[in-house]
Amino acid sequence: MTEILSPDELERRLRKIGEERYHNLHPFHRMLHGGKMNFGQVQAWALNRYVYQSAIPRKDAALIAKLQERELRREWIRRIHDHDGYGNDDGGIERWLKLTDGLNLDRPYVISQTGALPATKFAVEAYVRFVYERPTLEAIASSLTELFAPTIHAERIAGMLEHYDFITDELVAYFRKRLDQAPRDCLFALKFVRENARTPEQQVAVLNALKFKTDVLWAQLDALYFAYVDPGFIPPGAFRPRT
Amino acid sequence: MTEILSPDELERRLRKIGEERYHNLHPFHRMLHGGKMNFGQVQAWALNRYVYQSAIPRKDAALIAKLQERELRREWIRRIHDHDGYGNDDGGIERWLKLTDGLNLDRPYVISQTGALPATKFAVEAYVRFVYERPTLEAIASSLTELFAPTIHAERIAGMLEHYDFITDELVAYFRKRLDQAPRDCLFALKFVRENARTPEQQVAVLNALKFKTDVLWAQLDALYFAYVDPGFIPPGAFRPRT
Repeated sequence: MTEILSPDELERRLRKIGEERYHNLHPFHRMLHGGKMNFGQVQAWALNRYVYQSAIPRKDAALIAKLQERELRREWIRRIHDHDGYGNDDGGIERWLKLTDGLNLDRPYVISQTGALPATKFAVEAYVRFVYERPTLEAIASSLTELFAPTIHAERIAGMLEHYDFITDELVAYFRKRLDQAPRDCLFALKFVRENARTPEQQVAVLNALKFKTDVLWAQLDALYFAYVDPGFIPPGAFRPRT
Repeated sequence: MTEILSPDELERRLRKIGEERYHNLHPFHRMLHGGKMNFGQVQAWALNRYVYQSAIPRKDAALIAKLQERELRREWIRRIHDHDGYGNDDGGIERWLKLTDGLNLDRPYVISQTGALPATKFAVEAYVRFVYERPTLEAIASSLTELFAPTIHAERIAGMLEHYDFITDELVAYFRKRLDQAPRDCLFALKFVRENARTPEQQVAVLNALKFKTDVLWAQLDALYFAYVDPGFIPPGAFRPRT
């Protein structure tokens, strides 16, 4: 690809990546939202997803650490507050722990990540490292999966409340909150990418960054499916649901 | 050194590093605060020091990027707000730019850092890299020069207001604000270091981290002295005061 894309065409291709590769398409999510999981499988999902949630502020700090422009830093730092909390808001990680609490998972065990799948941890750390090491433009582009998140969150809230009696309104507070936060954040990131990916090379890099991020999310569900659905090979040391 | 120091003894040695190596001892600062500088030299100081100021949020973000504990991140992030500003507060970097404005330096020129001394930039980036690369304990210990900062700020406010008619109360707003912020921050960091440097190796590393940081500050004044005081060799491309 050597042509220069217009910002609109670039955006179209970014959104197409979401249509083809976002993890809402993964069989694990279809089962989860469709009420096909048992309690232990939902536990395994929440426990593993905590690894991702809790790494997000480090990822965002890694980005801020390379931003030379104060205005950009001031914009981006709100994401850390969204997850870690600030002032009276306890933040998204705490809301996630409310979910794992509600699923009868021991909080120190969740936080320790000792029961999480190694493949989850590898994928998550690959994401943090990507943001550390790549140029700002690519690091920001990798956040654009948030463009596709509101659909999955809305689907998840409805699907899980409908299908599982152990899922209450309080437990899905994390996703409700993200319905407001993610669109605000991703529009900023999208604008940044549209304006700053100005060469064919940068545009390819930006598309690849988003693909990479969809891989990070997808790989986590592959690992969950393999360990807890089919064939159900739980690696040594990983969480084992009571049956 | 193989003995384990008590936390009090460790603190004593940390403070001793300040007494012996902090940059308030540098001849450049003695001249600056004692009214011995001309206008161009004060300009050169403020212009170069901007490089340091503006890198501090990146340094703090680099630290947050490795903090696994949410509570620690929530504590440390206030430092980024102190410098970048948050909500209605414009932050310390903006206050520093008020100083350079008041010294008739063109703001885009200051921000571009093109007139700063290469040695300044090298020293500052060495600090940011140190925090990136070293363990959290050492990264936090390197912030402990703030233990010694209130004295220099108080001295600077008084000395500069007394000796220079071009320095007004508004221009020293940065230092006044730091008189409140720095003690709060450094007490947290000191407590962390006292509690977490528990082996002789960690204690040596912590002392070396603080020495490293005093070197970072000292080297900036050496470069200023060399270029703008004696022998006065201004490197190619660096700021040249009008005479």
